[in-house]
Amino acid sequence: MTASAHPSQHPGQGFAVDTGRGVTAAAGFRAAGVTAGFKPSGKPDLALVVNDGPQASVGAVFTSNRVAAAPVHWSRQVVADGAARAVILNSGGANACTGAQGFQTSHTTAEMVGEALEIGAGDVVVCSTGLIGEQLPLDTIRDGIAPVVSALGAGEDAGLAAATAIMTTDTVPKQASYTSPEGWSLGGMAKGAGMLAPGLATMLVVITTDAVSDAGLLRQCLIEACSRTFDRADSDGCMSTNDTVVLMGSGASGISPDEPEFVQALTAVCHSLAQQLIRDAEGAAHDITITTCNAVSEADAEEVSRAVARSNLFKTAVYGNDPNWGRVLSAVGTTQAVFDPDELDVTINGVTVCRDGMIGDPRDGVDLSAGREIEVLIDLKVGEHEATIWTNDLTHDYVEENSAYST
Amino acid sequence: MTASAHPSQHPGQGFAVDTGRGVTAAAGFRAAGVTAGFKPSGKPDLALVVNDGPQASVGAVFTSNRVAAAPVHWSRQVVADGAARAVILNSGGANACTGAQGFQTSHTTAEMVGEALEIGAGDVVVCSTGLIGEQLPLDTIRDGIAPVVSALGAGEDAGLAAATAIMTTDTVPKQASYTSPEGWSLGGMAKGAGMLAPGLATMLVVITTDAVSDAGLLRQCLIEACSRTFDRADSDGCMSTNDTVVLMGSGASGISPDEPEFVQALTAVCHSLAQQLIRDAEGAAHDITITTCNAVSEADAEEVSRAVARSNLFKTAVYGNDPNWGRVLSAVGTTQAVFDPDELDVTINGVTVCRDGMIGDPRDGVDLSAGREIEVLIDLKVGEHEATIWTNDLTHDYVEENSAYST
Repeated sequence: MTASAHPSQHPGQGFAVDTGRGVTAAAGFRAAGVTAGFKPSGKPDLALVVNDGPQASVGAVFTSNRVAAAPVHWSRQVVADGAARAVILNSGGANACTGAQGFQTSHTTAEMVGEALEIGAGDVVVCSTGLIGEQLPLDTIRDGIAPVVSALGAGEDAGLAAATAIMTTDTVPKQASYTSPEGWSLGGMAKGAGMLAPGLATMLVVITTDAVSDAGLLRQCLIEACSRTFDRADSDGCMSTNDTVVLMGSGASGISPDEPEFVQALTAVCHSLAQQLIRDAEGAAHDITITTCNAVSEADAEEVSRAVARSNLFKTAVYGNDPNWGRVLSAVGTTQAVFDPDELDVTINGVTVCRDGMIGDPRDGVDLSAGREIEVLIDLKVGEHEATIWTNDLTHDYVEENSAYST
Repeated sequence: MTASAHPSQHPGQGFAVDTGRGVTAAAGFRAAGVTAGFKPSGKPDLALVVNDGPQASVGAVFTSNRVAAAPVHWSRQVVADGAARAVILNSGGANACTGAQGFQTSHTTAEMVGEALEIGAGDVVVCSTGLIGEQLPLDTIRDGIAPVVSALGAGEDAGLAAATAIMTTDTVPKQASYTSPEGWSLGGMAKGAGMLAPGLATMLVVITTDAVSDAGLLRQCLIEACSRTFDRADSDGCMSTNDTVVLMGSGASGISPDEPEFVQALTAVCHSLAQQLIRDAEGAAHDITITTCNAVSEADAEEVSRAVARSNLFKTAVYGNDPNWGRVLSAVGTTQAVFDPDELDVTINGVTVCRDGMIGDPRDGVDLSAGREIEVLIDLKVGEHEATIWTNDLTHDYVEENSAYST
């Protein structure tokens, strides 16, 4: 890869993902989304995804934030045995920093869902999203269970309803699915528009598959897929207390997939959902793809790309349609990666604005106002590894949304 | 220190700093500031500070950014022998990412200043600030040397002229001085309003003293003073390529100060200048003091305070006058510091909004719209150490200034 080439590869490349279908794209799953009343707006805010089997495999990854929300604590216990039958998700309240009472709320939620579905509470994953530091009203949950169970369906509409009910500041529902030539499928939905950062973004993701697979393998595949997709979406450097990605396997296709193919397809679905998250990030006007190439290790490449993605100065420059490569280099210079400052090349949308650490092609050759897509390529010229981080610009709308969110 | 107490101590507390006088407050120094023509606006943009001795001691600290500007490379060589006679500073161009030609520009600048002052080029520190990635016009420097040398004076006006000529997006000049009861003095000036982050802020600082001291001691005292002042001002997490703090000693008072007292006084001057930088940070509407107390180590306390200072979500919340402690906790949770999430207290302007990791006093008791000062206290309850980071909020004006800066 040379500095003048555009980054064209992405994780899961070559697997045709359909963003028109979500969690019900895989056989053996039903879903629903209803208005329970958590949101003052009256918009849908309670979603349910049920795995009707025959298998009940589950793998999950959670936020690495040490201040984890109550539903994260609950759900970690649920998935520990590799089995789960349902995921209940609410928007309109994160149930984070809510102490013992908050944990009891998540536990009771699982019990009520279990009772309605005639399954054990220990097979019900619970996810919450919204404002931190407020107790969730238990009555609202209780009143919402019967309607959401009644609304369960296996069609596309049901999947879309669930994807819609988990939205907070998201402006669009986010879905992705893949069907293999052999006949097994993956389906997924995601929410998240702020607090998007590594160790997972601020997001809830449910992915379904009808492939035959055990829980250990599902988890292993999920970790691998997340590491190059969700973990590399970094909107604002802020790590959430509630991030959860759940992958459930029903085995309903009766097909055991080839493992490398399954990982690639799962990665493609995760990549699509992660891209949809970044594209809908709060207030963003540009989607920025930052690739560092020719690093001595993938870790070095990731560190450099992430440092640039975290630079408020670079992100405001992009908002101002200014290909300010000096701010790229000043961010690169804060890392411990192996490179020679006098050898760095920076290419923005195909124009090498910085060559050998100094002024390259005239930057007025780069017109950032032409579209949403910004591709930054940093060539370290010391190795053969690369990594991409996806982020967005820092805009007035970001400041507006986040200064007004809880009040 | 308990969580309900306001942080009242600061580095150098008890030393009366005068912000009306700058680098000429110490005997043996002359200064000047003129318009050379780097800035299209025609505002002053070239400053000179000369040490007339009898001593020519110097200590300095520079940016830890690996992409360091040409004048930083030059000045590191100048101060290596502990002797310097002058500092020449320009605004209107950072001379960063300018390669061999940029270094030659800094070298030639020192030669021209040395010739005009009849001192060696190797005794001339060079500092530049402004846009990264453009060559400085050597003709402009050449034409500016004679006027700035002619303008040199030892009075307050001369100090102020120098402090004014180094401003970029700063709205006010920044000065601080201290005179000891024994009769020795410190004087200082600083510039910097963006790219304020650790490993020094985006700033140039020149400090003078007429105390008798050798270069090794000056440098050691400066490192100590900076570590708890400039290094803890973190406006936007962005580290500059040009940061320089130079401390010059003339010995003109004939007094050898008590070392601990000198360090404390120097710290007080640095603290004052750092506070002036944060208060003038680009677009800021609030000054935020984040103290973490009862940590097992000062490093832990600093890590926690800095994580909160780097949270765009918390900083936008403050801009919206929202005491959103959930965003404080979610930032604390990303650190490796020792604490129990269920034991954390957070106090904002004296109100304990979070107690034992969950909802504390009603947060409508905190009115952030009442003034610029926000004091956040995070009590980890596991040790006896504390550290404070100073930052500011993330505002529309920050986005505006930084999206329009170079275009």
